[in-house]
Amino acid sequence: MSLLPADHPLTGATASSPLVRAYSGERPPVTPVWFMRQAGRSLPEYRALRTGTRMLQACLEPDLVTEISLQPVRRHGVDAAIFFSDIVVPLRLIGVDVDIVPGKGPVLANPVRTAADVAALRALTPDGVPGGLFEPVTTAVGQLVRELGGTPLIGFAGAPFTLAAYLVEGGPSKDQLAARTLMHGAPEVWADLMSWLAELTGAFLLAQVRAGASAAQLFDSWAGGLSLADYRARVAPQSAAALAPVRELQVAGAASNDGRVPTVHFGVGTGHLLGAMHEVGVDVVGVDYRTPLDTAAAALPGVPLQGNVDPALLAAPWPVLEAHVQDVLARGTSAPAHVLNLGHGVPPETDPTVLTRIVETVHAASGR
Amino acid sequence: MSLLPADHPLTGATASSPLVRAYSGERPPVTPVWFMRQAGRSLPEYRALRTGTRMLQACLEPDLVTEISLQPVRRHGVDAAIFFSDIVVPLRLIGVDVDIVPGKGPVLANPVRTAADVAALRALTPDGVPGGLFEPVTTAVGQLVRELGGTPLIGFAGAPFTLAAYLVEGGPSKDQLAARTLMHGAPEVWADLMSWLAELTGAFLLAQVRAGASAAQLFDSWAGGLSLADYRARVAPQSAAALAPVRELQVAGAASNDGRVPTVHFGVGTGHLLGAMHEVGVDVVGVDYRTPLDTAAAALPGVPLQGNVDPALLAAPWPVLEAHVQDVLARGTSAPAHVLNLGHGVPPETDPTVLTRIVETVHAASGR
Repeated sequence: MSLLPADHPLTGATASSPLVRAYSGERPPVTPVWFMRQAGRSLPEYRALRTGTRMLQACLEPDLVTEISLQPVRRHGVDAAIFFSDIVVPLRLIGVDVDIVPGKGPVLANPVRTAADVAALRALTPDGVPGGLFEPVTTAVGQLVRELGGTPLIGFAGAPFTLAAYLVEGGPSKDQLAARTLMHGAPEVWADLMSWLAELTGAFLLAQVRAGASAAQLFDSWAGGLSLADYRARVAPQSAAALAPVRELQVAGAASNDGRVPTVHFGVGTGHLLGAMHEVGVDVVGVDYRTPLDTAAAALPGVPLQGNVDPALLAAPWPVLEAHVQDVLARGTSAPAHVLNLGHGVPPETDPTVLTRIVETVHAASGR
Repeated sequence: MSLLPADHPLTGATASSPLVRAYSGERPPVTPVWFMRQAGRSLPEYRALRTGTRMLQACLEPDLVTEISLQPVRRHGVDAAIFFSDIVVPLRLIGVDVDIVPGKGPVLANPVRTAADVAALRALTPDGVPGGLFEPVTTAVGQLVRELGGTPLIGFAGAPFTLAAYLVEGGPSKDQLAARTLMHGAPEVWADLMSWLAELTGAFLLAQVRAGASAAQLFDSWAGGLSLADYRARVAPQSAAALAPVRELQVAGAASNDGRVPTVHFGVGTGHLLGAMHEVGVDVVGVDYRTPLDTAAAALPGVPLQGNVDPALLAAPWPVLEAHVQDVLARGTSAPAHVLNLGHGVPPETDPTVLTRIVETVHAASGR
């Protein structure tokens, strides 16, 4: 156990926020709401700010990160900020030659597919990552939480499997075939790569929380492509390891959540993995739009849930979307606590006024 | 009920083939095996034949279709031929401006998103599709089954949802957002589009079976992106309608499968939909690599299963792949009958000798 500093937001400013209370399994008077990818392309003020700056460059400029992360909080009145970043940021900081190509996603200069490729990754010191490695990120987090006051910041990282899939494939892929080939064809190489990623990810999440984030979400975007057996045997242990440093933190004097920093786990198409994704050691499970929240609650008794408005309905007429939001809220009552979110990220072409309207609707519904 | 011609392969040549017997719920002495996308890019003889011919053009040249469909039967000794085609072929034949762009997939000149767009689709006559519409396909099927003799040909079509998703999106998409937006935002337009597609698909499957195919597989490649509720309410009825014409056929004097032409249903990432996909009215359910066959068999008691070797393991060392194939065979014994296949299509870069080795392994294992 290691104690968070006494001036950490979780010891005061955000401790009784609806988000932290819901993540801790309570039902605050207002159902909290935020949107995956709320900071980004759906906002004209974001597009204006990003003009001329490449994605990964933007992620490493603290002032830009702070402003972009704040934009949706100001505009929509959401109950949390999510750190503006990308899951490949820690890879870039540790020296992996990766760039985010517009319209394509992360592209690696050299895919990692052999024992030699894994050995060539920058060694982590016995104490974890080199000191100051995440400095651009922790600086941004520090600035952000000062601006946010009582609104919690959610830190995040990509899970080892999803990062490994990018590294092995050399970029985005439809089926993550090369990753599964390596997982089964060279299990020791796979395990070494996953362990390295778990350590990097764990340090990255810990750095964000120490710098002031009030919760941490692990995104295993591509885990849904795995069978339960593969997930349990070759992926879950390293996700658990990545979460461990944050799980071991203790919030001084915190009553809620047994003094733990709340953690959330999310993946797309993971209906068959929900139990296993909870078992890696998280407080909250994010549910994609395919699995109704009452179904998820039955599979995860006692677990607070986050989700799961279908992003496709953001473009439907308002009465259709509103009915869907109310349905999600109603099903969310099956869980001990519910944070409303989308069941996947905000599509870039979303009309942002629709997101604001959802926030108003959720808050009004909770007040009834 | 309508009777198949007395010279149809199902009344004689293929009636007691391992594939037809397994599809009918029996356990033939040899477990039949074929591979989704076995006819195509993994074979050098295919690539040689296709040089200079665009995909959709190739699908409409009966001699080419016949030869390409036969290639994997000759090379691998598989227990069935699958008709070389593409799921957009019936759309092209009915006049939709669609092309298959190499490296991208089907691209539509004009996405179908409004009532006017649906109304502009070529009307089907009261008797169904215009006579002779599928002539290039039925000619190829006729030639093929003569060459195949006792080896059954599997006809196939894309399911209405997957076709609708292509039409609405205007091409391939990661999340089928526009399709789900239309489904919920304009349910009457969606229903009209789906009904038109169900009629077209039903006629297309019927034409292939009448011309000599011994089974029919409906591919709902993208159904896995739907919730069970959406699938049942807005997709399954039209899949059932698309299967109805083949389901109503009667094989003269056939003892197996109650005289029905066997039908198979497959989609990727459909673990949560397996029961619903069976209930549309099929004999066999294809299972993707994520769901172990014993798990699928428990969800579908009494239903013959097809699948589900992970295509990623085709590139793993042979002992790893062999152990996986044996595991799939062992789990397949939980179902009343099992046709070994992949849990998704053959990746283009697959070494074809590996596929041949799988066929030998499956046949040898069954003989034990």
